[in-house]
Amino acid sequence: DVRRMLNGLPAADVAHLLESSPPKFRHILWQMVEQEDEGDVINELGDELRLHFLSDMNAAEVAQITEHLQDDDLVDILQQLPDRVTREVLDSMDHRDRARLEQVMTYPDDTAGGLMSTDTITIRPPLTFDVVLRYLRRHAEIPPMTDNLIVVNRNDQFIGLLPLNTLLVSDPSSTVRERMITDIPPIPADMPDDEVARLFERNDWVSAPVVDQQGRLLGRITIDDVVDVIREDADHSLTSMAGLAEDLDTFAPVFYTASRRALWLGINLLTAFLAASVINLFQDTIEKVVALAVLMPIVASMGGIAGTQTLTVMVRGMALGHVGKHNESWLINRELAVGLLNGILWAAVVAVAASLWFDDWNIGLIIAAAMIISLLAAALTGATLPLLLKRMKIDPALAGGVVLTVTDVVGFLSFLGLATWFYV
Amino acid sequence: DVRRMLNGLPAADVAHLLESSPPKFRHILWQMVEQEDEGDVINELGDELRLHFLSDMNAAEVAQITEHLQDDDLVDILQQLPDRVTREVLDSMDHRDRARLEQVMTYPDDTAGGLMSTDTITIRPPLTFDVVLRYLRRHAEIPPMTDNLIVVNRNDQFIGLLPLNTLLVSDPSSTVRERMITDIPPIPADMPDDEVARLFERNDWVSAPVVDQQGRLLGRITIDDVVDVIREDADHSLTSMAGLAEDLDTFAPVFYTASRRALWLGINLLTAFLAASVINLFQDTIEKVVALAVLMPIVASMGGIAGTQTLTVMVRGMALGHVGKHNESWLINRELAVGLLNGILWAAVVAVAASLWFDDWNIGLIIAAAMIISLLAAALTGATLPLLLKRMKIDPALAGGVVLTVTDVVGFLSFLGLATWFYV
Ligand SMILES: [Mg+2]
Ligand SMILES: [Mg+2]
Ligand SMILES: [Mg+2]
Ligand SMILES: [Mg+2]
Ligand SMILES: [Mg+2]
Ligand SMILES: [Mg+2]
Ligand SMILES: [Mg+2]
Ligand SMILES: [Mg+2]
Ligand SMILES: [Mg+2]
Ligand SMILES: [Mg+2]
Ligand SMILES: [Mg+2]
Ligand SMILES: [Mg+2]
Ligand SMILES: [Mg+2]
Repeated sequence: DVRRMLNGLPAADVAHLLESSPPKFRHILWQMVEQEDEGDVINELGDELRLHFLSDMNAAEVAQITEHLQDDDLVDILQQLPDRVTREVLDSMDHRDRARLEQVMTYPDDTAGGLMSTDTITIRPPLTFDVVLRYLRRHAEIPPMTDNLIVVNRNDQFIGLLPLNTLLVSDPSSTVRERMITDIPPIPADMPDDEVARLFERNDWVSAPVVDQQGRLLGRITIDDVVDVIREDADHSLTSMAGLAEDLDTFAPVFYTASRRALWLGINLLTAFLAASVINLFQDTIEKVVALAVLMPIVASMGGIAGTQTLTVMVRGMALGHVGKHNESWLINRELAVGLLNGILWAAVVAVAASLWFDDWNIGLIIAAAMIISLLAAALTGATLPLLLKRMKIDPALAGGVVLTVTDVVGFLSFLGLATWFYV
Repeated sequence: DVRRMLNGLPAADVAHLLESSPPKFRHILWQMVEQEDEGDVINELGDELRLHFLSDMNAAEVAQITEHLQDDDLVDILQQLPDRVTREVLDSMDHRDRARLEQVMTYPDDTAGGLMSTDTITIRPPLTFDVVLRYLRRHAEIPPMTDNLIVVNRNDQFIGLLPLNTLLVSDPSSTVRERMITDIPPIPADMPDDEVARLFERNDWVSAPVVDQQGRLLGRITIDDVVDVIREDADHSLTSMAGLAEDLDTFAPVFYTASRRALWLGINLLTAFLAASVINLFQDTIEKVVALAVLMPIVASMGGIAGTQTLTVMVRGMALGHVGKHNESWLINRELAVGLLNGILWAAVVAVAASLWFDDWNIGLIIAAAMIISLLAAALTGATLPLLLKRMKIDPALAGGVVLTVTDVVGFLSFLGLATWFYV
């Protein structure tokens, strides 16, 4: 019953059900999936959960269930498997399939080559529409997401695109050469996938041809796979900022989840000890004026919030391709100016509040100065660190932990330092 | 020169250039855009920047530059304008356009109705493919992203879809009735836009028909607009967690940016005073054992990191549609178990480190206990608060500030409380 319902659903819906289920229920569901659908379902799963199911299979099983998948999808799966298993799966294929897949696998997963499938329909420029229409009618079906036929020369080099829509509204005696579009450049196979996604987004493409360095047609990229790239990249910014894996399994089991999160907590513990050792320098001052211990988390907390805001704007701007060499110094300056303005605003508020609370105008002045210093440090770190990490080819979103450490350290140091200079 | 280059680019590229430019340069660029392209560029801009340019125009200008836009895009723009301006723009249109737009505008922006355009091509079931092909050839062009013709009955009610691909490969004597697809349900106009996006993603659609409650065809949604929804929703999770607006302008000017961020900092300042007042309760204890002031930020900081991780997993899971009534208690329990495990792990480490540092095994025990309590509180708040907010129809991503407050308060309270009980 549940089984019949399940096998009536599209693979993507089954994948969604599995992703929305706790582990126990998930395994019951997985056992109900017909073997012939397993490949399609695996294909639609997020990375973490997919790997979980794949790790229970041997090479022969993987080969069998993924047999009918498109090249691009099969390659994605193979690239997640241990090299030994990938080798075995490839060896079990016939010669032609293997050669084609090995070619696609030479392109890294995060490039245009890694996104493309090879199901193109190509035509030559001299043909009339009449001939093209008869040629199409000889196909049993046209691959999904085919909005253009691809025009190539006799060396298989890309020349242009013929939209099916043009074919449908034009006189059958027109020729391909007359009506093809030649001003859309094809995508080079080594273009990074986020750039591909931006091209699709900006030009509202449904599919686009991929070529090698000699301009030879290799395949095409379709919008459904681009949507997955967009989703994954956006997910990446969100999860990395919290030190989590992208494409993570929402319902991963306890031990797995705890171990994946432990490292980030451990790193934070180290940096927290760093901040603590700053406070440790000022034990004598705190002993004299205990109010300092009461107020110091306020400075650190405001710095942390401001730093996170700046960092989020930077990480997002970089992911959207807004930030480059020519405008990054403007951004850093803007963030410093914003930090200064908000620093002054909230320093004034906090100065009054703290002075009234502890009936001491000096402590108000000290916390105000420390607050301004903190927000400036937050702006500077939040703005420059992600740029620095990117130049070192490290994920800028990982700056989160360091930004909080810097704001804690600067917050404690400026507040307790100024207080020591004044009170001791 | 720059002007010629600029006006040779697609509108989306011009919009991207504007979005990547600091304010001064941006206004120089904007002046170079030909008036006839302004509507297309405005259409491609993010919400915040679009509003910025629109606010400099009067109703007549808006009406003129947006004249040729598709319904869905024009409505998006109108909905961003003050009601008075919207009214004026509508009044300046001819009767038929106005009536059509007003109908589209009855659907909220974040529903299927708000996403649809009215450029459908409809056919009737008895037609042969021959007739359909001749009918298409009478069109000057077919609207972009048309992958299906929509089959309706004589009351304009949706019956099914005829893929253009089927039309192209089939015998011209086939009829629409024989070959149309009837097992894909149309989208109701009041379906939320994130659900629409999930349907497109899962079924790899290029376009889909939208119907009213009587099943009458209203229009269709195309993948390019769905991609924008996906991008915006992902953006929303990221920016909301830091108290920022979605679709924000990376290069917004200083004063605007400072004022937009001030509120979130102000709220945090209030909650920081709450945490400070907790510490204030324990002034005597801190005076006796100053080491407590040194170590207390460690507890609060670990709680903050753990709480943010839990919250991120929840907000993301909710945005992806993974979390529902039937599995939320499993998730809360998982998070509590993970909090306990990581709490015990890092409590042990921190206990040894603190004991050695201050040569006092008691302080090690106290901080270990406080750490476990903190991570449990972080898990509980991070997991339940977003669910609670969603039930109150508040954006769950806004839970960020409260989670940090709770972890600070619980961290200070448990650590200093236990210390007081022990030392005083
Ligand atoms: Mg894929
Ligand atoms: Mg990627
Ligand atoms: Mg790939
Ligand atoms: Mg677009
Ligand atoms: Mg797919
Ligand atoms: Mg594909
Ligand atoms: Mg903090
Ligand atoms: Mg739009
Ligand atoms: Mg929305
Ligand atoms: Mg809309
Ligand atoms: Mg898909
Ligand atoms: Mg568009
Ligand atoms: Mg549209």
